[in-house]
Amino acid sequence: MDAIQVGIIMGSDSDLSTMTKCAEILKQFGIPYYMTVASAHRTPDRVAAVVKRAEEEDWKVIVAGAGMAAHLAGVVAAHTIIPVIGVPMPSSDLNGLDALLSTVQMPGGVPVATMGLGSAGAKNAGLLAVRILATSDQALRDKLREYRDREARSVIEKAEKIESTQ
Amino acid sequence: MDAIQVGIIMGSDSDLSTMTKCAEILKQFGIPYYMTVASAHRTPDRVAAVVKRAEEEDWKVIVAGAGMAAHLAGVVAAHTIIPVIGVPMPSSDLNGLDALLSTVQMPGGVPVATMGLGSAGAKNAGLLAVRILATSDQALRDKLREYRDREARSVIEKAEKIESTQ
Amino acid sequence: MDAIQVGIIMGSDSDLSTMTKCAEILKQFGIPYYMTVASAHRTPDRVAAVVKRAEEEDWKVIVAGAGMAAHLAGVVAAHTIIPVIGVPMPSSDLNGLDALLSTVQMPGGVPVATMGLGSAGAKNAGLLAVRILATSDQALRDKLREYRDREARSVIEKAEKIESTQ
Amino acid sequence: MDAIQVGIIMGSDSDLSTMTKCAEILKQFGIPYYMTVASAHRTPDRVAAVVKRAEEEDWKVIVAGAGMAAHLAGVVAAHTIIPVIGVPMPSSDLNGLDALLSTVQMPGGVPVATMGLGSAGAKNAGLLAVRILATSDQALRDKLREYRDREARSVIEKAEKIESTQ
Amino acid sequence: MDAIQVGIIMGSDSDLSTMTKCAEILKQFGIPYYMTVASAHRTPDRVAAVVKRAEEEDWKVIVAGAGMAAHLAGVVAAHTIIPVIGVPMPSSDLNGLDALLSTVQMPGGVPVATMGLGSAGAKNAGLLAVRILATSDQALRDKLREYRDREARSVIEKAEKIESTQ
Amino acid sequence: MDAIQVGIIMGSDSDLSTMTKCAEILKQFGIPYYMTVASAHRTPDRVAAVVKRAEEEDWKVIVAGAGMAAHLAGVVAAHTIIPVIGVPMPSSDLNGLDALLSTVQMPGGVPVATMGLGSAGAKNAGLLAVRILATSDQALRDKLREYRDREARSVIEKAEKIESTQ
Amino acid sequence: MDAIQVGIIMGSDSDLSTMTKCAEILKQFGIPYYMTVASAHRTPDRVAAVVKRAEEEDWKVIVAGAGMAAHLAGVVAAHTIIPVIGVPMPSSDLNGLDALLSTVQMPGGVPVATMGLGSAGAKNAGLLAVRILATSDQALRDKLREYRDREARSVIEKAEKIESTQ
Amino acid sequence: MDAIQVGIIMGSDSDLSTMTKCAEILKQFGIPYYMTVASAHRTPDRVAAVVKRAEEEDWKVIVAGAGMAAHLAGVVAAHTIIPVIGVPMPSSDLNGLDALLSTVQMPGGVPVATMGLGSAGAKNAGLLAVRILATSDQALRDKLREYRDREARSVIEKAEKIESTQ
Repeated sequence: MDAIQVGIIMGSDSDLSTMTKCAEILKQFGIPYYMTVASAHRTPDRVAAVVKRAEEEDWKVIVAGAGMAAHLAGVVAAHTIIPVIGVPMPSSDLNGLDALLSTVQMPGGVPVATMGLGSAGAKNAGLLAVRILATSDQALRDKLREYRDREARSVIEKAEKIESTQ
Repeated sequence: MDAIQVGIIMGSDSDLSTMTKCAEILKQFGIPYYMTVASAHRTPDRVAAVVKRAEEEDWKVIVAGAGMAAHLAGVVAAHTIIPVIGVPMPSSDLNGLDALLSTVQMPGGVPVATMGLGSAGAKNAGLLAVRILATSDQALRDKLREYRDREARSVIEKAEKIESTQ
Repeated sequence: MDAIQVGIIMGSDSDLSTMTKCAEILKQFGIPYYMTVASAHRTPDRVAAVVKRAEEEDWKVIVAGAGMAAHLAGVVAAHTIIPVIGVPMPSSDLNGLDALLSTVQMPGGVPVATMGLGSAGAKNAGLLAVRILATSDQALRDKLREYRDREARSVIEKAEKIESTQ
Repeated sequence: MDAIQVGIIMGSDSDLSTMTKCAEILKQFGIPYYMTVASAHRTPDRVAAVVKRAEEEDWKVIVAGAGMAAHLAGVVAAHTIIPVIGVPMPSSDLNGLDALLSTVQMPGGVPVATMGLGSAGAKNAGLLAVRILATSDQALRDKLREYRDREARSVIEKAEKIESTQ
Repeated sequence: MDAIQVGIIMGSDSDLSTMTKCAEILKQFGIPYYMTVASAHRTPDRVAAVVKRAEEEDWKVIVAGAGMAAHLAGVVAAHTIIPVIGVPMPSSDLNGLDALLSTVQMPGGVPVATMGLGSAGAKNAGLLAVRILATSDQALRDKLREYRDREARSVIEKAEKIESTQ
Repeated sequence: MDAIQVGIIMGSDSDLSTMTKCAEILKQFGIPYYMTVASAHRTPDRVAAVVKRAEEEDWKVIVAGAGMAAHLAGVVAAHTIIPVIGVPMPSSDLNGLDALLSTVQMPGGVPVATMGLGSAGAKNAGLLAVRILATSDQALRDKLREYRDREARSVIEKAEKIESTQ
Repeated sequence: MDAIQVGIIMGSDSDLSTMTKCAEILKQFGIPYYMTVASAHRTPDRVAAVVKRAEEEDWKVIVAGAGMAAHLAGVVAAHTIIPVIGVPMPSSDLNGLDALLSTVQMPGGVPVATMGLGSAGAKNAGLLAVRILATSDQALRDKLREYRDREARSVIEKAEKIESTQ
Repeated sequence: MDAIQVGIIMGSDSDLSTMTKCAEILKQFGIPYYMTVASAHRTPDRVAAVVKRAEEEDWKVIVAGAGMAAHLAGVVAAHTIIPVIGVPMPSSDLNGLDALLSTVQMPGGVPVATMGLGSAGAKNAGLLAVRILATSDQALRDKLREYRDREARSVIEKAEKIESTQ
């Protein structure tokens, strides 16, 4: 079994379908990952334990997704020097503004790489993790370029379809 | 020396002048308190240590003031069953909306008694702590009624002054 | 019949299903409570009467839930020295921002312990009430610790389920 | 002495300079008014007393100015059937959004005629009071038309000055 | 036929079901009213014509409901000295914040009595119109008091129902 | 004297220093313009008169700057088919959000070309006016390209200065 | 085939049904247009290519619709001196506030004529394009006046229908 | 001279004092960096050229700081597969909400690692860059741990000072 490169932690199992977008990107790039649930508020010790394991096993990136007063990414970042990517969940009444501000407005000293809200953010968390891993992996850089070109071609195909039907 | 009844924790020493409003209320009511700095992000272990001490020494209430992605109150509440009062600090570019939402929007299971922003919130944190202590202390209840009456008289005096100058 | 420990007031009967989350927590902890409807705007006298009864019967905590320009918790807090917990209802067009700000931004002198919006807030209102009662009740503190541990175990079970299906 | 036509209530003496803009309009139109301080949170009984006097003395309009979780106008409107005009004060960290939403988002059944924030709102509160009194007073309607024409001329004079300096 | 006392103008026929809440209140109080559609942006001349008719026929109050960049109430208020009540419609993507701010933030000199968003605001517009008419009509004041008492009794009945089922 | 190509209208003379940024751009490009004050709320007839003149004199573009519940641009656009550019002024307590939403959220049928808030917006209003005029004026298109290149060179010079001092 | 007068670019094919409102207006006025998809983030080269074609073929106006961090209109405006109209899409969790601010808050030097959110904005983008083309086309000005009159009559017909059913 | 590891790009030279916080962190960790100005709107070609150089010289991380409709980070991320860190500048009237949403709400496929607003965000951008470089550099990981410990000790010293003066 390959060593874990990326850890995905979500604050609640209700975030699973969203955070799966992150896992799917990692799978697509062949990056071994570990995905689990750990709540900064209901299971602070579990969060600490997962982060400790991350340091011991030398994970390269941790992705943390949470909603409402989303403290998970910040708490993880406080316990490690591994790069932490935060995904705010739009799960509450305030359209996700609470989760977004709780994740991004970190005080100087403890960075959280914050993504956009929800599925787009989760997908981008996976891609940022790959970009980070690719800084020391030429093969991954090539794969990222191929991925980007495929995405661009997909836009162009849609454009052609729309143009042809006018 | 009297046993500590209330702990006041602030995320940064720049919050001192604001959180002092809380301490002043406690002094006024003769409540022994302990005030310190502990950052949820820069010193997570220190936060845990303060909370552990709170549980061991049987503090009755913890007040936590923090700004930006204000995780302090939530992190404290996650580590204890003592009532936690959160004071959001309006220290950042978003007029304190970040601190307010980060403090108040706690997920179900871990309550934080959130006050308004800044000085008014810090003062009210002191008064809520007194109200909580007063639930099992008749003398404190009497003092609270006196305080309220004094506050009301002060409003009335100002009203009379304004009326007399029209 | 046991003496009422906690009063739950809601501004409209349409808030019932949300505020029931608060009542369920109190039932679970065996706390006698009284739940009713009283609107700060449509029945100000009734609000005053409920608060007067609270003072006479020595209730320990009052929980007030209301939406829109949510004045109920503030009005209750103005009439009593009992700790007041406010639950903003996300019932209006502004995603609950109106109810949240109307509840939390109390002026210095009259604290309202504000919870998050809606169901999570109502549940936490119940738990904060229990935490407050527990400041002078060792048995309740033990129950709170058990509750917290059960909640943590529930998160861990969900985590294991998610991990096992990857 | 003429009977009071308009009552101006402000939640704090710090609102005086703003609410004076309302009084100035009333003076300009020769409307007898009474201006005082009464806090919905610190002096709820005083608010009730002022409103009771308003009903007994048959005031025609009540203007209420308050900041933060601005409950004053709503509380006044709940105690009377006299038209109530609310002026939200931009006194807090949230740019007055808290005072605005707390004043305007009244539930169905209890209207508050809400003005814009601060000085412009206070001035307009005076003018709306005059418009209301003018519904049964032809002389006042004429004065309002003169006032409006003077305001328009003042804009035109400024326009001419700007045009002439180009 | 009785002379029109209140004019109700809405910016679009899609506002009809909401503004009907206002008409229903007026009907209930026996106030003759006239309700129509006139868009400040698509039919500025029609708006001017309706306002001119209002002045000629001596209407007492104009209610204006509009959404998005809701200019209708402000434009009406600019053309008349009759009291104007604005009802912001929550019809757009911004949860009605656009309509609310466009209606309430009038510059000094031209007041708009702004209600809350949507149906509650429309109902309250009707009630404020009645309160204004009642300033010179004792019978209407009595009816308002009866209305208020009925509303209060309705709340109390709901409260009793909830209490009895606990 | 050259025929007016662009009219600049501002709602208040306090907007002059901001709207001058628009005039400066027009001067720089040699576009004859006319700048005046006309308030949609205090002088609706003057606004109509200015717009009538615009149609008669065949102005090509109208720029309208206003703050708070900024109705000016919308009212102008309702009275003409000339392209209207709106500049929201950040003059009120809400950081200009009121002016921005009041200007941009026009209903379908009456477009306002909305710029950013304040000085940057006023400058861009001038540049958009030039771009519009340039659609039928080759010489103006050349000038616009020169302007853009100068702006780019200015950025590059600043970049070189910063790089050289590292 | 007639030369393209207006280019419509959307950031994603999911914006098609909204941007079609723009195309429908252009069709109604007989303006030849070209509509395609090009993402500022996924296909930056394609955006540059479309803009280059626009300059070469002398298009008169470009309409750009995009959601979330909507950079498309700004990027287009940076590459051309043709007037650019931006339509923010309300596609994300923040009610379109992200798309609106990302489109409208352009720095001084590069204007984007920003419309309201979604369908109303797309329709108005078409109408603004026509207004711009009409600055050098008398026939188009006449058509715009006819369109405006038809729109006004449609409002009046709806008004009559509502009035007749009261 | 050492090869550049991190590029810092800012949209305007007015961002220099803020972005210097990022450079200071990199200096402290001995990371060679290059800092320049390039505006996504005023110099799109320069942005493309800087990014091209980054790819050719194999920079590991790019930090992009910009205000208002902050497109810089997104545009850079669209042109490269190098990890991009965005720093929103609070330079405009909307308290930085425009820059924050324009930076963070990227569509799926093109991630931007968004930091908090202003100086704290710029400092954290430097620290995140170091964390990313440290994923393949053990010595840097050790330095990060030392840095974190120093920061924690600094908090503790401040705490002791505050405690000793009570």
